[in-house]
Order: sequence, then C-alpha cells, then structure tokens
Amino acid sequence: MVVKCHGFFYFCQNVMIMDKQALFQQIKTKSSFLCIGLDPAMDKIPEHLHQEADPIFAFNKAIIDQTADLAVAYKPNIAFYEALGPKGWESLQKTLDYIPKDIFTIADAKRGDIGNTSKLYAKAFFEQMDFDSITVAPYMGEDSVRPFLEFQNKWVILLALTSNEGSGDFQQFQNAEGRTLYQEVLTKSQRWGTADNLMYVIGATRGEKIEEARKLAPGHFFLVPGVGAQGGRLEEVARYGMNQTCGLLVNSSRGIIYASSGKDFAQAAQKEAIKLQEEMQDYLNKYCF
Amino acid sequence: MVVKCHGFFYFCQNVMIMDKQALFQQIKTKSSFLCIGLDPAMDKIPEHLHQEADPIFAFNKAIIDQTADLAVAYKPNIAFYEALGPKGWESLQKTLDYIPKDIFTIADAKRGDIGNTSKLYAKAFFEQMDFDSITVAPYMGEDSVRPFLEFQNKWVILLALTSNEGSGDFQQFQNAEGRTLYQEVLTKSQRWGTADNLMYVIGATRGEKIEEARKLAPGHFFLVPGVGAQGGRLEEVARYGMNQTCGLLVNSSRGIIYASSGKDFAQAAQKEAIKLQEEMQDYLNKYCF
Repeated sequence: MVVKCHGFFYFCQNVMIMDKQALFQQIKTKSSFLCIGLDPAMDKIPEHLHQEADPIFAFNKAIIDQTADLAVAYKPNIAFYEALGPKGWESLQKTLDYIPKDIFTIADAKRGDIGNTSKLYAKAFFEQMDFDSITVAPYMGEDSVRPFLEFQNKWVILLALTSNEGSGDFQQFQNAEGRTLYQEVLTKSQRWGTADNLMYVIGATRGEKIEEARKLAPGHFFLVPGVGAQGGRLEEVARYGMNQTCGLLVNSSRGIIYASSGKDFAQAAQKEAIKLQEEMQDYLNKYCF
Repeated sequence: MVVKCHGFFYFCQNVMIMDKQALFQQIKTKSSFLCIGLDPAMDKIPEHLHQEADPIFAFNKAIIDQTADLAVAYKPNIAFYEALGPKGWESLQKTLDYIPKDIFTIADAKRGDIGNTSKLYAKAFFEQMDFDSITVAPYMGEDSVRPFLEFQNKWVILLALTSNEGSGDFQQFQNAEGRTLYQEVLTKSQRWGTADNLMYVIGATRGEKIEEARKLAPGHFFLVPGVGAQGGRLEEVARYGMNQTCGLLVNSSRGIIYASSGKDFAQAAQKEAIKLQEEMQDYLNKYCF
C-alpha cells in the first residue's frame, strides 16, 4: 500500500516515491535546484585515485560525500561508463547505490528505439539499476517513449532543445506556421505523460528560449544543461524558467567535478557547488517562493 | 600503409577496410544483401540453451554458424545486451569476436549526444569493441554525429525514416516548402560524411518512401528494417531502393532467429535466411547487376 503524504517524499515497503511535489520539497529543503553531472574520465580524475581498485567509483564517492547536501539530483552520463566496458557498468552501479535515496537520479543515456527495444532499455535503467529517470531522444516518436513512461514512479526526461551547437540543425526546423520541431516535441509529448513523470531537456543558452519553452510546458520540470562549461547563465534561466514548484534542475558537470585536479578535488567541487547553491537560493527567494 | 585494391575489401596490418565497394563485393559474392539482427532475449531463446555458461552467446554462435554464408551483415541491437547488465556486454563482445571478419557489423545503439560524449560512445563501439558501424540518432545535429565519422574505416548509420508507428510523430514534420524532417536529415547530413562512411536507416513500409529517399541520397547505402516481423515488402524495397552498388542492407531479426523455439532453431533460422537470400538474388539480377 502506498501512503500518500503531500508535500514530501514518502516511503512504502522501502520504495520512495519521487513525484513533482516530492522533488520540489527537496529543492525547498536544500534551497537548491542543482544537478551534478557525474561524468568521470580516467584521463581527467586526479592521479592519486588511479591506485584505487575502482578509481571511477572512488572519484564519484568523494564528490557525492562533499556535495550531497547541496545537490537535489545526480546525473551520470552513461557514455562515460559504457566507454570503460563491463567494469564501467560496475562503477556506475556502485555509484548509483551510493547516492542517498532522497536525491533524484538521472541516467543520461539519450536512448530511444522501437517499442519492444525501448522497453528493454527501460528495464535496464529502471529495474536492473533503479534510476529515477532517464533522458530519451524523441526522434522515433511516441511508441519509442511510452515504454519508459509505463514504469511506475519513474521519469522520462525528453530531449527538446539541447545546448550544443548542432541543436540548430534539426530542432529549429520550422513548419509553415513558424512552429519549430523542438516546440512540436514539447507540445505533442505532453499527451504521453504528465508533469509527474515527464520532464524536458531545455538548453540554457538564451533566456528567451527558456521563456518560450516555459509557455509551452508551464507545469513540467526542465533539466537545464549548459551552466558553466557550456556557457549558460543561471540568472536568466531562473528568471525565465521558474514556475510555482521551481520547475528547474540546473546541471553542472565539469565546472564542479573538475574544479581541481589535485588531492583537494572533492573540496574544490564542494566550493563550486556551494557557489551555485547560494546563487540558486537567491533566485528561489526571488522568483519562486 | 594501406594498400588500395578497388572492388574488394583489403587488409593492412590485419585491419580490413570495408568501404562501399568492398561491401558491394560481399553482396555480389553472396548474392545477398541480408542483414541479420542478433537480438536474443532470455525468455525467447530455446530452453535447452539455458544450461549453457553463456546462453546468449551460445544462441548467437549457432545462428552465425548456420547463416554466415547467407548474410553480409549482422546487427546486434545493443538494448538486448545492455538489459542483461555487465554479463550482457560480455556476451556481446564474444559475439562480435565470433563474427567472420568479412561480414559487416552494426552496433544498433541509436546513440547521439554532445560532441565529447558522442566521442566516448564512438570509442566504446569502434575501439573497445571494433564494430564496423553504429546507428546514430540525428536529433542533436552535426556535432553529435561528427565524432563517429572521424573514425577511419568506420560507418555511421543515421536514423532518417524509421519503420515504427511513432515515425510519423516528428519525422514527417513539414516545413513551408513541404520538406519533411526526415528529408532534411537525409540532405543536410550528406555534408558531414560520404557514401563510404555514412548510411541511412530507411523504414520499409512503403515503396514510394524508399524511392523518395533514394532520390535524395542516390549513392548511399540504406539499412532497411521492417522486413518480416515489422511488415515490409522486400520486392518493393529492391525495386525502388537499389542503386548501382545495390545500396541496400535489408534486416530481418525475429523472422530468422526465432523461426523455431526448439532444438532445431539454428537450422530453422538457416531455412528462413535461405528464403530471403534466394529472393534477394532474384532482385539483384533484376534491378542491380
């Protein structure tokens, strides 16, 4: 039996339900909407960790230890683990197990395939690995997305407007009414899920784009990459993107995890995370609470 | 040093170069443009294989043994392996190692991410695993595709028009001139690669669509799913899709690998593969040679 308890996450038989309200409660508790990208590469993690049995996990563990009270979400980009072969998947599993259960977890996998295949991907990330959410590419349409949405208490984070240079190639492709592909993705996909199981990736390069996306999906959470290394602007994102339940998870990866390449990497990561969290607290007070 | 030898694959320091002409030579040699999808699921492979140390590899090995002279390509869909965790990746690696080197290998992974991340995926599939090609989703544009194209002697197979129901949701999104998104993908991406390192996924549901795609990309190979279980029609595909170097790889997965669920599964798979190969031989004679 699931015991409903509005305004905070709730447990039932050791299963935590992380819906929109629960996520907002986490954001209020921590005064933060920070998501940290756990994208460790062997050639970038500090030298002294290379002696560890599992250097990737050792790196992630130290980052998590220093930032768990500042972040509401962790987002491992799956490519970084897949590139290491079967050992990488083990590091990923250990990392996921180590993340405190009240923190939202995102498998940044950008999967998407025909129905029965998407179902397998969903099983891999939601059952085998128990992530709270997965990023999904929309190109193949509804039946490639639905299998992920059918999992209870799990989220799809659908690519809408990404922050990379190539986002202009197809995402801005426009129909006769001036509607772009990314707007079509944002609108059409709202028929497939709800604000409690469907978020969108919205790149943070321009405030007007965030505003445009917010108009089309007022109640949904946005995962915003591109703050820091990719050149986004947090204030603009908050001003134009926030809704009544914050509605934002802003990701930073390299800016935090590679803040230092020395033995103080985790402390340096914490410092960067604090900077972002304090800025976020201001914006929450200003634009949300 | 690479020794060029037109019209057939060639070796250099044990590296085989599989360009368009080499692929066409394989097609001529085998009178076949058959690609077999190696998509084994534990609940679908024959009961007696479950006692094997690696049932998935045992299944694939038997299929390969019976069909290697009939197929020019094998296409493992990565989801089927990923769903099994680290063990699945080992089965995949063993399968890949077992496929004869003159047969084209496709990692059906549908990956695509920002540049540095796509590069990691490319490393995973092209260096760690030595696939000849990978399927890539185009949604994130040029810089998500290029990292794959930068690998020498490796191919990108870009999703253009897929064969699933949801393909109508965004791939048919139309601009003011009546140009659809999938046509835009097909056209724009030809600036990024050549007919020797870039193919397209073109769904096989209607001949007119294949014809349309062929006009937009006359020299490129198409990977055509949807024959068999997904309901395509081989004759139409050949008639409208073939070019002077065949230009087609037609995939069948379930129709071949699950032709029987008994101990005769590999022989039954061979029978189905022969049926398709013989049909293909006719079409090659009629529309290509």
